[in-house]
Amino acid sequence: MNNEMNWIKSITPDTQQQPSLKVGIGDDAAIFSTETDMESVIAVDTMVEGVHFTKETMTMKALGHKALAVNVSDLAAMGAVPLYYLVSIAIPKTGWDKQELDDIYQGMRHLGNQFQMDLIGGDTVSTSKELVLTVTVVGKVEKDRHLLRSHAKPGDVLFVTGPLGLSAYGLEKLLAHGRKAADEATLAEYLKAHQYPQPRVKAGRVLAESGFKIALNDISDGIASEAMEIAQASGVRVTLHWEEIPTAPLIKEGTQEQQENWVLYGGEDFELVGTVSEADLPSLEKMFTEQGLPFFPIGRIEASDQPQVVLERNKGEVIPLTKTGYDHL
Amino acid sequence: MNNEMNWIKSITPDTQQQPSLKVGIGDDAAIFSTETDMESVIAVDTMVEGVHFTKETMTMKALGHKALAVNVSDLAAMGAVPLYYLVSIAIPKTGWDKQELDDIYQGMRHLGNQFQMDLIGGDTVSTSKELVLTVTVVGKVEKDRHLLRSHAKPGDVLFVTGPLGLSAYGLEKLLAHGRKAADEATLAEYLKAHQYPQPRVKAGRVLAESGFKIALNDISDGIASEAMEIAQASGVRVTLHWEEIPTAPLIKEGTQEQQENWVLYGGEDFELVGTVSEADLPSLEKMFTEQGLPFFPIGRIEASDQPQVVLERNKGEVIPLTKTGYDHL
Repeated sequence: MNNEMNWIKSITPDTQQQPSLKVGIGDDAAIFSTETDMESVIAVDTMVEGVHFTKETMTMKALGHKALAVNVSDLAAMGAVPLYYLVSIAIPKTGWDKQELDDIYQGMRHLGNQFQMDLIGGDTVSTSKELVLTVTVVGKVEKDRHLLRSHAKPGDVLFVTGPLGLSAYGLEKLLAHGRKAADEATLAEYLKAHQYPQPRVKAGRVLAESGFKIALNDISDGIASEAMEIAQASGVRVTLHWEEIPTAPLIKEGTQEQQENWVLYGGEDFELVGTVSEADLPSLEKMFTEQGLPFFPIGRIEASDQPQVVLERNKGEVIPLTKTGYDHL
Repeated sequence: MNNEMNWIKSITPDTQQQPSLKVGIGDDAAIFSTETDMESVIAVDTMVEGVHFTKETMTMKALGHKALAVNVSDLAAMGAVPLYYLVSIAIPKTGWDKQELDDIYQGMRHLGNQFQMDLIGGDTVSTSKELVLTVTVVGKVEKDRHLLRSHAKPGDVLFVTGPLGLSAYGLEKLLAHGRKAADEATLAEYLKAHQYPQPRVKAGRVLAESGFKIALNDISDGIASEAMEIAQASGVRVTLHWEEIPTAPLIKEGTQEQQENWVLYGGEDFELVGTVSEADLPSLEKMFTEQGLPFFPIGRIEASDQPQVVLERNKGEVIPLTKTGYDHL
């Protein structure tokens, strides 16, 4: 028996929540079954210390939450029900203690439990310098109920499921003042948006269950970049109506340039952005209202020779948006 | 458009091999269906530069091959058919060029094609120092056909699917002389075992299709450690017969201590080690012979108050094995 095996034992769940799980942690691989009317949905995302987070901006519990949340958000953007997750963690040989590692897993477990997700596998390795946390998630969605980026059509309405820019605003304050110095009373909502983003699983399920033809994306890289992905996959032009994009009070106090940076390019909002036909819009809005979920029409889709995203503001001023997401290479 | 997006486009497959794949790379997540008589099998493994490999010991093509192979080996150890893989790569900001990254993916693609596996997702991020490569694999196995570590029973025979110690021997030569200086003519078999391990998918399928009660593990950490996992999961004593363990000529030239280090503790052989009842053994050996696959009975399972692994050699000398796998923490 060694340290690694003991620690893995300590993070292994002693109960399981999904009846479709046949073999969980403890063998070479996990095994699960899938109902005949469902398909499996799978995604993977990695967070690197110094790139996606630092100990100055995130508690380890928040890191665990967020590493799982960004993955569950990908499932939400496919309209899927989250089921399982696997965690691969590369731990620096120095500078990290057991309590911090436990906190990461506690943060994941807390969010996972919210969706009855089971931790079903993973890998623990060492590294020399930065913590690298890779989460794989598995969910399920009704057969052939695909909410793809390529589904936008001219005449569709663009919508978003919540206010944008809060995570970027919160991060700016965290980078300026550090986690402990940031003014929690005033900034609570903004810090939470950055540290504890809430994946919009319920909204994704409403969209999948609606049966409507819907294009969908989650906002990890900023709405300008996500709208461009829809424009490219669907071969359309996306117009964002600046005045209709929901945001938050402190953001409104910034200059126009600041506001656009937070709202359009900031990213990590993890709201869903999508399109629906004008004919289906009223029914869809009603479904969201009935579920107590926010829903904001913020733009329109038009035919175009080439994919593009433009911003319309001040009653008719139209600006092409070209800036895109963070480039790792 | 940016570097990262262009590069991702360059590694995205333009054909798919599995008809059950519904949505591949290019959306928030991938979607696949599962036949009603099958269950899904999933595993994840990470390779870290400086821990699992260096540029001195591995070409980048070999790294790609091995990163996928060690995961497919986990599927083989569950008797599964490999189907899909997802790749998360954290790339150091300096010291790596596009050709090296392309080679990694080419190595994965080459092995993946051997099993008709589709690359269906991933993530590309940056890191400051070491390359970190995390692969998630998905396979399928017949419903309730589970080959678990906990299935060993007193009276069972322990078997292995190929010679052991070659990978450790090859690594020792690579560490001593470097990749370019290693004597390829003499060492080909040993270097290949370390750099291009072949996951025993076909053997795993024979074991799953046999319908016999079988405990199974793949040898990633050395047979002493893998046998201990079976001993612990099944609550039994595993006896390894030293003289029956298959190995290779150059290893036989070492001292007894060297031989035991390579064969019992070296690890990364990625052969399968398992147990089967004495009654089923002849049928199973016949199935392996018919498929042209090697099969070696190398020990036995006995009842025990506590899980243990012992080595029997020189006609009756019995030594308890306590050393286990590499400890990352």
